[in-house]
Amino acid sequence: MSFRIAILQFDPVRNDVEQNIRTIEHHLAVIQADLIVLPELANTGYLYSSPKAIEPYAEECAESSPFISALGKLAQQSKSTIVAGYAEKANKCLYNSAIAISPNGILANYRKTHLFHNEKDLFAPGNTGFITFEWKGVSIGMMICFDWIFPESARTLALSGAQIIAHPANLVLHLCQDAMITRSVENRVFTVTANRIGTEQLEGTSLDFTGRSQITDPFGTVLYQAPKDKPVLHSLEIDPDLALNKDITNRNNLFQDRRPAFYYQ
Amino acid sequence: MSFRIAILQFDPVRNDVEQNIRTIEHHLAVIQADLIVLPELANTGYLYSSPKAIEPYAEECAESSPFISALGKLAQQSKSTIVAGYAEKANKCLYNSAIAISPNGILANYRKTHLFHNEKDLFAPGNTGFITFEWKGVSIGMMICFDWIFPESARTLALSGAQIIAHPANLVLHLCQDAMITRSVENRVFTVTANRIGTEQLEGTSLDFTGRSQITDPFGTVLYQAPKDKPVLHSLEIDPDLALNKDITNRNNLFQDRRPAFYYQ
Repeated sequence: MSFRIAILQFDPVRNDVEQNIRTIEHHLAVIQADLIVLPELANTGYLYSSPKAIEPYAEECAESSPFISALGKLAQQSKSTIVAGYAEKANKCLYNSAIAISPNGILANYRKTHLFHNEKDLFAPGNTGFITFEWKGVSIGMMICFDWIFPESARTLALSGAQIIAHPANLVLHLCQDAMITRSVENRVFTVTANRIGTEQLEGTSLDFTGRSQITDPFGTVLYQAPKDKPVLHSLEIDPDLALNKDITNRNNLFQDRRPAFYYQ
Repeated sequence: MSFRIAILQFDPVRNDVEQNIRTIEHHLAVIQADLIVLPELANTGYLYSSPKAIEPYAEECAESSPFISALGKLAQQSKSTIVAGYAEKANKCLYNSAIAISPNGILANYRKTHLFHNEKDLFAPGNTGFITFEWKGVSIGMMICFDWIFPESARTLALSGAQIIAHPANLVLHLCQDAMITRSVENRVFTVTANRIGTEQLEGTSLDFTGRSQITDPFGTVLYQAPKDKPVLHSLEIDPDLALNKDITNRNNLFQDRRPAFYYQ
């Protein structure tokens, strides 16, 4: 089967959800795809000094919320499901979340399991676990940024049936892109890492985000890698069914050959 | 602390354990090290048509067995623990195993958990689980070849305390070396992949072994990679204590940040 994946790499700004919506609308104006992946915290940007500082820009996981509502319209327009990182507000808690919204509405909401560095001051640790959803007959899983370094993240999604891992990110480390190749190989899945670009500064902290958004196939081929510092919308066709075959040889199946009795949990 | 690791990459021959012992003795004649890692099935070579064909060359896990006895003498001579893959015979079963033998005798014996392709015709699946042992105050774990593609192998060893993963291999795929970088990064461990070289042919099957034996550090640096087709003995100094620190930032510890309640077993 044929399935068109798009990545939007851009530079979300802080304290201005409306501006970020306009940027996303501008980039997605004419695209037609099946799945579009945006960076982590695409509504708010990254560096905030406290929960109080980011809370006015966070929103509830609801189709009527401003950022999600704008994504819903773009989903209808592009006939695509959009996966985007966003700051979520729920029951007085804030989460670093990813929404999956189709032309028919919200399909899934994932809250980041492994928080990186000072995110621990802003967000509660995710309580959803790793989520897969089905869209156009394809199983798609979500993880966010730093989840990449824990092999259990992609493994859990793949064992739950994910053919594609949608991976919004705000990467500052340089090791993720190569590791995502390993994630593809060890799980026979497609990975779609939508990273952001740009620099943020706050109270003496300066972060350079590393771009190089990337799509890999189940055999470890890098199908696309974006530049490190330019906004880009890139789409390509894949056959998600390639991720259904876990036979690495005619006598080795990556999942059936597992021996969990010997694995540390 | 300082700890010298050596890799021996060579071309074991079939049906001639004595010849393989002589080759190993020749290469290790003057080395002094703390840990020396040899390839998988270093006593027998790889391709056999049946258990009956390899059984005469397999041996029990005992210090008096011919191959292990020779390794024991080399361990004394080099003041090193030697980890070597070998065909093991035990209770009418054959295993694809790795022995760890120090100047003081056998420290551990690991039986390969994940058998590759036609190894399933020769060997029983390993029943030891992943093993770590201590040598000169350093915790060392063992895995064999195809175990690499299952992230649970290195993860289990690292969570059991392994600072160094000794990885005898007979690799024919081309993806392992890059994946071992990810294994180092996700677990903050050293990895020592001792691969073989050469070609074996049997009944229409021809296998090219891919060399490129490799040592990585806990930060994903490739400290050494051997050529793809030449025998080589290479040693270098590491500080194994670098693998004790799992702090990837001052607020992220790779092990304490794990959230097993959300992981698929």
